[in-house]
Order: sequence, then C-alpha cells, then structure tokens
Amino acid sequence: MLKNTLFETLQKVRDAKPLVHNITNVVVTNFTANGLLALGASPVMANAVEEAADMARIASSLVLNIGTLNPQTVDSMILAGEAANEQGIPVIFDPVGAGATPYRTETAQRIMRELKISIIRGNAAEIANVVGEKWEIKGVDAGRTNGNIADLAITAAEKLNCIVVITGKEDVITNGRTTYVVANGHPLLTKVTGTGCLLTSVIGAFTGVEKDLMQASVAAVSIYGIAAEKAAELTVESGPGSFQIEFLNQLSKVASDDINLYASIKK
Amino acid sequence: MLKNTLFETLQKVRDAKPLVHNITNVVVTNFTANGLLALGASPVMANAVEEAADMARIASSLVLNIGTLNPQTVDSMILAGEAANEQGIPVIFDPVGAGATPYRTETAQRIMRELKISIIRGNAAEIANVVGEKWEIKGVDAGRTNGNIADLAITAAEKLNCIVVITGKEDVITNGRTTYVVANGHPLLTKVTGTGCLLTSVIGAFTGVEKDLMQASVAAVSIYGIAAEKAAELTVESGPGSFQIEFLNQLSKVASDDINLYASIKK
Amino acid sequence: MLKNTLFETLQKVRDAKPLVHNITNVVVTNFTANGLLALGASPVMANAVEEAADMARIASSLVLNIGTLNPQTVDSMILAGEAANEQGIPVIFDPVGAGATPYRTETAQRIMRELKISIIRGNAAEIANVVGEKWEIKGVDAGRTNGNIADLAITAAEKLNCIVVITGKEDVITNGRTTYVVANGHPLLTKVTGTGCLLTSVIGAFTGVEKDLMQASVAAVSIYGIAAEKAAELTVESGPGSFQIEFLNQLSKVASDDINLYASIKK
Repeated sequence: MLKNTLFETLQKVRDAKPLVHNITNVVVTNFTANGLLALGASPVMANAVEEAADMARIASSLVLNIGTLNPQTVDSMILAGEAANEQGIPVIFDPVGAGATPYRTETAQRIMRELKISIIRGNAAEIANVVGEKWEIKGVDAGRTNGNIADLAITAAEKLNCIVVITGKEDVITNGRTTYVVANGHPLLTKVTGTGCLLTSVIGAFTGVEKDLMQASVAAVSIYGIAAEKAAELTVESGPGSFQIEFLNQLSKVASDDINLYASIKK
Repeated sequence: MLKNTLFETLQKVRDAKPLVHNITNVVVTNFTANGLLALGASPVMANAVEEAADMARIASSLVLNIGTLNPQTVDSMILAGEAANEQGIPVIFDPVGAGATPYRTETAQRIMRELKISIIRGNAAEIANVVGEKWEIKGVDAGRTNGNIADLAITAAEKLNCIVVITGKEDVITNGRTTYVVANGHPLLTKVTGTGCLLTSVIGAFTGVEKDLMQASVAAVSIYGIAAEKAAELTVESGPGSFQIEFLNQLSKVASDDINLYASIKK
Repeated sequence: MLKNTLFETLQKVRDAKPLVHNITNVVVTNFTANGLLALGASPVMANAVEEAADMARIASSLVLNIGTLNPQTVDSMILAGEAANEQGIPVIFDPVGAGATPYRTETAQRIMRELKISIIRGNAAEIANVVGEKWEIKGVDAGRTNGNIADLAITAAEKLNCIVVITGKEDVITNGRTTYVVANGHPLLTKVTGTGCLLTSVIGAFTGVEKDLMQASVAAVSIYGIAAEKAAELTVESGPGSFQIEFLNQLSKVASDDINLYASIKK
C-alpha cells in the first residue's frame, strides 16, 4: 500500500464529510463524536428502535459497539444493521468486552450471525472470544497477548468472512488472504477510555468514502496511530488528560508529510 | 438592547446559580453540565419517568433535547414539561435532528403541541422541519442554508407561538414581532459536538434569572458566541480539542469589557 | 495514619490495576473511566440486568451511583450488589441527589437496606437524606452546610453500619468509631461535573487492593485532593476546562513527595 494513497483517502473523508451512524456505548459517545468531527466526518447517534433503521439508511456507514449493551440497543443494532445491509452500507462492529460476560459473548456472536459485517475491530481477546477461541480477558481489556495475533486475525477473517482488525502493540488488518501489520500508535492510547471505540468509528468514516475496505481500514488504522504519536510527542510529560485533547487536535491536522514520515505498514 | 444589560443578566446567573434541569442526549451530558457550571449555573439531569416531574418542579428552568430520544425519555420530557408548565417554569426545547427521521420530526412536533414551550433553539433545518417547511438536513447538521433564515424564524415564531432561536453563521432570535441578529461565535463551534445543545442549556440558565425571555435569549446567544471567539483566538492554531477546553474556560470568565468589545447585535 | 502508607496504597493500585465495575450515571461515565485509568485502575461499565452480576463477580470492587437512575439500572445495581456481596467484593455507593426527589431518596435507602454497602460517599445533604435527617439540598448539590458534618457522619455510620465519607470543604471519613478529617482538595473541583462521582470510584479502586477499608478511603480521599491541589496550582488562572484536564494528568502522577508535602489528615 503506497503511503500517498493513505492521504488521498483521508482527504476524501475531509471533503465528503461522510455521515457515520454510531450505535455505541454511553462511556464514549462524546469522545467518539468529537473524534469524528476532528477527522472531518459527520457523526450521528440514534439508538432507539423507533429510528435506528431510518438513520442507518441515510448514513455513509454504520458503527455498532456493545460497550454498554442492553436488549433495547441490541435490537436497534440489529434493525439498523439490516437496513444498512439492504442498502449496501458498510457495517463496522466493535465487540467490546466479548468474553467478559456470557451476555457480551453471545450478543457479539449473534450480531456476526444475523448481520453482514464488513469489518470487525477489537483487541485479541475480544476477537478470539467472538470466534470461540480461548483467550483471557480482563473486563474490557485484552489479557495475555502472547498468542500469535496475525494467525488469530486470519483465522477469524476466514471464520467470520469479513475484514478483521486486531489492535494492540501492533495492529493487524486482514481479509484472510492479504494481511497488513501497522506499527503506528502510542501506549498513551491505553490510558484514555474509548480510543479503541473511536478507532472503530474512524474506520467507519473511511469506509464511507473508500469502497476498497482493506484500503479504508489500513488508512484509518495508520492515520489514527500517527495522530496518536504526534499527540504523544507533545504531551507525554503532561499526562493522559492533555494527551486526550491533543489527540483530537492532531486528528484534525494529519498532513501528507506526517504520513510519509510516520506511517509504518508491513504487508 | 444595550450591551450593559447583557452583562447584568450574566451577573444574575453567576449570583443566583439557577438550577437548570436538562433531559438531554447521551452524547452531550458531560459537556453540558461542565458548560453550565463554567457559566455559573447549577446543572441537574434526571430522565426517569419516576422523577422527571419532581426534579422539574424544583428547577429554575427545564431544557428538553431529543438528540438521542427514546420512548422513555420522551415520556419523561412530557411529564417534566407539564410540571414546569404548571409552575410557570420556562421550558426550552432543542429539536436535535428534526427532519432526519420521522420519529424525530414527529416527536419534536408532539412536544411543541403538548407542552407550552417558551423558546425553541435549533439550526435552520431543524426549525423548518418542526414547522413543516421543506429544508434539507444531513444527520443532525443543517443542510443548505441559502433560505432566508430570519423569515423562517419569524414564520416559526408565529406558528409555534414561542421565541425561536436559529443558530448558524449568524444567529436569529425572534418572538415574531421583534427580531435580533447576533453575529458572535466562531466556526470552531461546529467542530465540537454538543455546542448547539449547550447553547440551548445556557439559554435555559439565563431564563432562570431573567423574566424577559427575549433579553435572556439574546444575552445567552451573544455571550456564548463571545466566549467562543475568545477561545478561538487562543486555540485556532491548536485545534478543536484545545478549543473545547478553552471554551469552558472562557465561559467562566466573560467580563463586562468583553461584551462591550465583542457583542454584535442588530435589531 | 502515616503518610508513607498512603503512597504504598496508591502504588498497589498502580501495580495491580484493579478492575472497578461502575454502574453510574450518563453524565460522568467518560470522566470516571478516564480518571480511573489515570490513577492506574482498570474501569469497566456494564449496566444491563443481563450481565451486571456477571461483571461484578470478576471485578475487584463495585461502585453504584444513582446520578441518572432509572428502574432498569437500579435493578442492575441490586443484582450486581448481591453478586458482589456473595463474593465479598467491596461495594461503594454514591447516593447522588438523595433528597432532591422522593425517587432518589427511596432508591438510596432501598440500596442501603438490600445490599451490604462497605462505604457510602456523598455530600452532607445526600448522606443526611439517606439516614432520614433533615438537610437542604439543591438539585444534586449540597445546600446549607452549617450543620456539624463530623457528627452527621458518625451518626450515619452507626445507622448504616458502614464507612461514611462526607465530602465538602473538608472531608470526613468515619466508621463510627474512628474519624479522620482530610483537608486536601480545591474549590475548582466544584466547577467540574462528576468530581464527587469520580472520587467514589477512586475509593472503589483503592478498596480493590487494600482490605483495610478505612485506610483505603482515607488514602483515596487525600490523594484525590492532592491531585486537585496540584492541578489547581497550574490552572487556576485558566479556568475549569483546563483544570479538568490537568486534574487527570495529576491523578496519573501523584508521587510520594507530593503526599509528604500536601497530605492534611487529622484524626
């Protein structure tokens, strides 16, 4: 993947301002909306059964996130997902905490079964639990990560028949045939809540303007990590509060030169 | 409207710390509460059917916002609104995303029909959809804005029999007879989620201390815009993350001199 | 209480990263999660009846907060609390706004009656209302505070049979027999929403690593206040927006020397 194509994809987001419909958890709504706005996309959140499908139909992409799931929002996710599937709108899924409780694991598996998901993004434990592999999880954070992440991602892509993005120290993006490893990002991301959730929504924004979903995923993951690296350079001495704010600033400013300088993508 | 009366109205908010009851969406709760605290008001949020009316009765004003509406919160809005109406407590309404889905449009129209709303605030598309005028909307953002906003606001004020505040590049405040155009504010407000919602709650805070609701509305809109301009001066190079934080700082600091220098209000 | 034991307790949090399960209000979810992450703990939020108990069972502590209560989240609190009680996991309760509406007061009293609460934290008005003493409340903020807070705390600890933490200008921590007064903290805490809620969750984090719950409570309250004082030193000129962010920074950095220099604890 050529670095200059990453910036072109970002520029499409900034120009088209795709409407990204998020049905997400109550912890990250504000940060997700502000992150999407900073990137140049247009966020909307509508989680009532009465309107979830209608909102999905007018969106460029749909992002589902089970971080604080309940039966009503799960119903809305299914309705919105079906509407998106009918219209060919990409659906991105974040199985937050799959494996932590049976309800999460079962709901994540149900969503994968009942909807056509284009891309699933999670940490290694979450993805493993969705596909029924054994993997330790601690709350909503990944546990041991000494398994082979790339192997897990490829297995998951084959079983789930979608693009799999596993984030961690390095990020793996695969459709089961082609696999990319992105080494951008910064450990401070783990000290701010919702940075995984926002990445899922950022992938959603990129799929709203780029039909090649592998291209969209790799561009989103790399650019997101670059913004984090740049934010960390300015705030690592200050702490996670300042990092969170500077990260939003940097998301709004990633330039072509930054991508050339920072992007670390291996096939 | 004399500029010195604006500061007096702000000073009343700071002195009386009016209790503003917000039934609002899950994206903006934190930002709204922090914005009201920065301004000097006292925010409270209670959205259960079991207590919405009780909380409204002890508040100085009630703010209703349908950004992430569902049947339960709509029931709570109606109950709280009826209680506020009985006690003569001002009710301010923000029809977020009216026009984006039938559920939003119908709920917004139902709230206007069943409650006595003192002030409605939205973008041009939202207000147009509440009164049944054709206007494009994209998610929860206004679409084309080449219609005549002032005409739309006056028509809406007559049809809805309340004060109408339409915000955009310039902000229009009208009761159908007297119309003000406020030219404060900054484009960075559109890069932070919930700045429209917070403005609605800030108008609510001002109505909690000022019985002349046109005075309250114009003061709130202008002072809010001034805080944004001052925040933008300090953060436009940094980005939307820093702007959001500095905006809260500036809301807590607007001074008499700032109003004299920045206020732009035309009748 | 020796100052060096406070830092040791903090260090245990940073080392063990206890999983703190929060069933809390929609205003403070993000700030609470980020505050716990900054401190070094691992936050999780799960408020559905379908999983609340399962999540509580794997947590190091459970924090219940009725800031935006509704029948479903209250059911989840009871289920999670019962599961925690069975396993001997500490349950910390924040009766936000008790006294403001009958529903809050009754729910707070129900939670105290049906669950074994280890620690309750609130302002004077909230605690007074939970134990049925007369005390004025304004929304979710404490009203008059000219009563004797220490007496109220001791009475409450005896009636409720748990540790009581009353925060205000000074903070009182008592189990009814031993009473500590902590004079750390800063008035800017009252200009940021959710600082009381986050403190309750921080107490939760400390109880996840320290079996002596008085030690855990005093350490949490003092260290929290120290972070606020240090943040205020850097941001008091800027305003509440900057303070909120710097407070997160400082929570991540409290050092042994800070505690020696700032801690103000009287028995």
